[in-house]
Amino acid sequence: MASRKPILVVAGVGTGAGTGGSTARLFAKQGYNVALIARNAKELEATAADIKASGGSAAAFPIVKYDYSDIHDAFDAIKKHWPGEELRVAVFNAGYGVWKPFLEVTEEEWKESVQTNIVAAAAFAREAILAFKQLEPNEIGARGNLIITSATAAWRGNLTTSAFAAGKHGLKGLAQSLNKEFGKQNIHVSHAIIDGSILTNRSRGRGDDYVNNPDVRLDPDSIAKAYLYLAEQDRTAWTFELDLRPAHEKW
Amino acid sequence: MASRKPILVVAGVGTGAGTGGSTARLFAKQGYNVALIARNAKELEATAADIKASGGSAAAFPIVKYDYSDIHDAFDAIKKHWPGEELRVAVFNAGYGVWKPFLEVTEEEWKESVQTNIVAAAAFAREAILAFKQLEPNEIGARGNLIITSATAAWRGNLTTSAFAAGKHGLKGLAQSLNKEFGKQNIHVSHAIIDGSILTNRSRGRGDDYVNNPDVRLDPDSIAKAYLYLAEQDRTAWTFELDLRPAHEKW
Amino acid sequence: MASRKPILVVAGVGTGAGTGGSTARLFAKQGYNVALIARNAKELEATAADIKASGGSAAAFPIVKYDYSDIHDAFDAIKKHWPGEELRVAVFNAGYGVWKPFLEVTEEEWKESVQTNIVAAAAFAREAILAFKQLEPNEIGARGNLIITSATAAWRGNLTTSAFAAGKHGLKGLAQSLNKEFGKQNIHVSHAIIDGSILTNRSRGRGDDYVNNPDVRLDPDSIAKAYLYLAEQDRTAWTFELDLRPAHEKW
Amino acid sequence: MASRKPILVVAGVGTGAGTGGSTARLFAKQGYNVALIARNAKELEATAADIKASGGSAAAFPIVKYDYSDIHDAFDAIKKHWPGEELRVAVFNAGYGVWKPFLEVTEEEWKESVQTNIVAAAAFAREAILAFKQLEPNEIGARGNLIITSATAAWRGNLTTSAFAAGKHGLKGLAQSLNKEFGKQNIHVSHAIIDGSILTNRSRGRGDDYVNNPDVRLDPDSIAKAYLYLAEQDRTAWTFELDLRPAHEKW
Repeated sequence: MASRKPILVVAGVGTGAGTGGSTARLFAKQGYNVALIARNAKELEATAADIKASGGSAAAFPIVKYDYSDIHDAFDAIKKHWPGEELRVAVFNAGYGVWKPFLEVTEEEWKESVQTNIVAAAAFAREAILAFKQLEPNEIGARGNLIITSATAAWRGNLTTSAFAAGKHGLKGLAQSLNKEFGKQNIHVSHAIIDGSILTNRSRGRGDDYVNNPDVRLDPDSIAKAYLYLAEQDRTAWTFELDLRPAHEKW
Repeated sequence: MASRKPILVVAGVGTGAGTGGSTARLFAKQGYNVALIARNAKELEATAADIKASGGSAAAFPIVKYDYSDIHDAFDAIKKHWPGEELRVAVFNAGYGVWKPFLEVTEEEWKESVQTNIVAAAAFAREAILAFKQLEPNEIGARGNLIITSATAAWRGNLTTSAFAAGKHGLKGLAQSLNKEFGKQNIHVSHAIIDGSILTNRSRGRGDDYVNNPDVRLDPDSIAKAYLYLAEQDRTAWTFELDLRPAHEKW
Repeated sequence: MASRKPILVVAGVGTGAGTGGSTARLFAKQGYNVALIARNAKELEATAADIKASGGSAAAFPIVKYDYSDIHDAFDAIKKHWPGEELRVAVFNAGYGVWKPFLEVTEEEWKESVQTNIVAAAAFAREAILAFKQLEPNEIGARGNLIITSATAAWRGNLTTSAFAAGKHGLKGLAQSLNKEFGKQNIHVSHAIIDGSILTNRSRGRGDDYVNNPDVRLDPDSIAKAYLYLAEQDRTAWTFELDLRPAHEKW
Repeated sequence: MASRKPILVVAGVGTGAGTGGSTARLFAKQGYNVALIARNAKELEATAADIKASGGSAAAFPIVKYDYSDIHDAFDAIKKHWPGEELRVAVFNAGYGVWKPFLEVTEEEWKESVQTNIVAAAAFAREAILAFKQLEPNEIGARGNLIITSATAAWRGNLTTSAFAAGKHGLKGLAQSLNKEFGKQNIHVSHAIIDGSILTNRSRGRGDDYVNNPDVRLDPDSIAKAYLYLAEQDRTAWTFELDLRPAHEKW
């Protein structure tokens, strides 16, 4: 890669304390230019500043909502921000969770669940794949890597998951179709099922027994390592799907 | 059931020549009042007239689109049409299929796929379940039966199915969640995977080799029999999911 | 079928109070000659006598163990018992359940689990399919129906199911392969996942709250109805797999 | 780990040119003592010699067949060979493949399929888990890692896979049960679905178009990297299952 720095785009960075932020930090350390997408511009700028302070290359591309037009504009801005650099890895980590008895889920929540979990993922995938198709396969045989964060609900519905399970099942159907359609073009699409609670700023509120027990919650830095592993798999052995859960998780 | 006639609601009747129409005709013969929902009012009236001409009880409830408000209004009209009768079986047979290379699927098609395949199904399920909850379990222990028509794409994505697989995977996630949430309330939710080509007016165009060979295409009347079987299962042995395919189908 | 009576073979009849016995009784009422296979000759004769006392046609074909040779001999004896009649339905309901922490499962139990759950099923399937292949498709387009009873453990392993899940997963892999291989020959193979407790002589010991609550346990007569439905599906809409569970079952 | 060298046991090394051999070589480079198990003693010794010639630590533990007693003896010999060292990773890579029309599969082949694919895996898992239970969790929170090589047939049966799919489905049921049972004890069990053709001495015979095209066949060294990644996952994010296939594989 000489002095060139490939671009990672990660959508769904949130506060920077979860999977999106950890992924951005890890790939920045590996020499990627890191493009951050999320809705909260202020938090996003802070995450970018944090990465730059550690010597990485990062920039924030906030969007108003997860729709075709905003996502398209963000990718356009990313390409202009690092002209001549190659967009090689795209991580879709956005999501919309709703856990409620079915009859309490509103029409608005249904629309938001399918929009953010599925349609926005399709819009993001579209931009990533269009960018990858302009590149030649790299030394491991990939034009690009699209990594999609998913959840247990992609595998099975449950008592209060109707809208969330519909969104994540749909996301899985999309991801699997993309893997099959674009593998032949040396574009690697993968789907990571996060099956458990992730240690984030919010979940830290559960107390020390939780925070200090690595057997019961996922470390977002460990999820990021999985994503780096996926991005580095050579073309002879690509993974479509893996699950990630804490050692003591009941499943 | 004495002189009472339970109500079947079936959405997605189309021309009346497919699964929705066959289901309506079979349940009408079993003594159900049959409420037909679809977007083409003229074809829908014709199907209703056809059932009445055969001695059945049927009425058409056309909607403009598959959204919360139209579906809600249709159920309201159905209840007023047969006052005092019990809505016991609801079949969601609507769907929106799009089979295209991923990069050719438009934003509009994505939105339509999640709206019709998932959100409309949730709206329909909501109305059905609210109606069922007002009833006591019948002699087979069911407050009501919600049967959802699905497709191979609910199981696996494929080369040109990104938007369709997302819709049908999402529908499956919804159906499974509902089955688990409402079984305890004696509401039976099931999910039928139709894995193959159905003999309809349109598919008859494939010619005699296809039409006359029952080994290679599904007869919608046989799908309807599966739905009747599901609706008649007693509470001790309820099926969530079954697949249906022609004998010679490769899968 | 005029005065002819097709033959049903059911293996795994046990005491006659479970799925095997109910299946035998229901098919006998439908006019089948019912061939019963199990290891306990005395109980098996009692079940046969019971069916005959109700006007059915039945005979017991006890075996010493579930292996190739005994199963082959049983089928030979069955064909000789009803010369000229057609063997049209075969139900494999035998099984070997072991629920223990993994480290407590003995080598002997492992061997028994794979032998009874998988190898015996293959031996049974072989005899049934060889018999079916000699017949023409009947009026619903089937040379014959092979129905395999399975369990939740075919879908997922769990804390104390290593040996049982291995057996039932293996059985499912066999069943699915057979369905795909023999569908083209108009032989219908199906796989029923029984997901819950079946009301049998043994489970009746759990007391009245269990016995008298049809929401929490499977009635073997209802499972038998599912098998009859499967056997009567016409060639245009065959089911490979369905699940059966009580309305209130948590899954 | 200072000067200590953990032990890797890998069963199913074959000629050393496939997954087992690549795994052994990679872990040897990482500083493991590598214990090799297979049936062909001569080839096994050659693989061990090869690793030692490259500066690694390896020893061959040939067995006569994949049964409880031979596998137990091999583990005993391994522990004696490297006294005081910790057995931390065990890879079960043995298997018995039979691809034939169902009616051509012999009783002997059925027994061999369930014995090697399932019962031997249980025997191997037993020895590994017993060894792991004597250790404290290491710096990544694992007492030990058990990695099981599987195949597409663990996911779906197909036209000529009845015996193979039964074996691999059974193996998956075992693996999933073990993952759930032993995760709480900080023992990490994972299951790798190899979905495609592996480049081995035998498959090289397919010619240059195959050998020289990394898009169409798996490199066993890349599978080994996946196994190393699995063995290095920390306790907060363990994978049970991943699939591995060449970029252009149709699935």
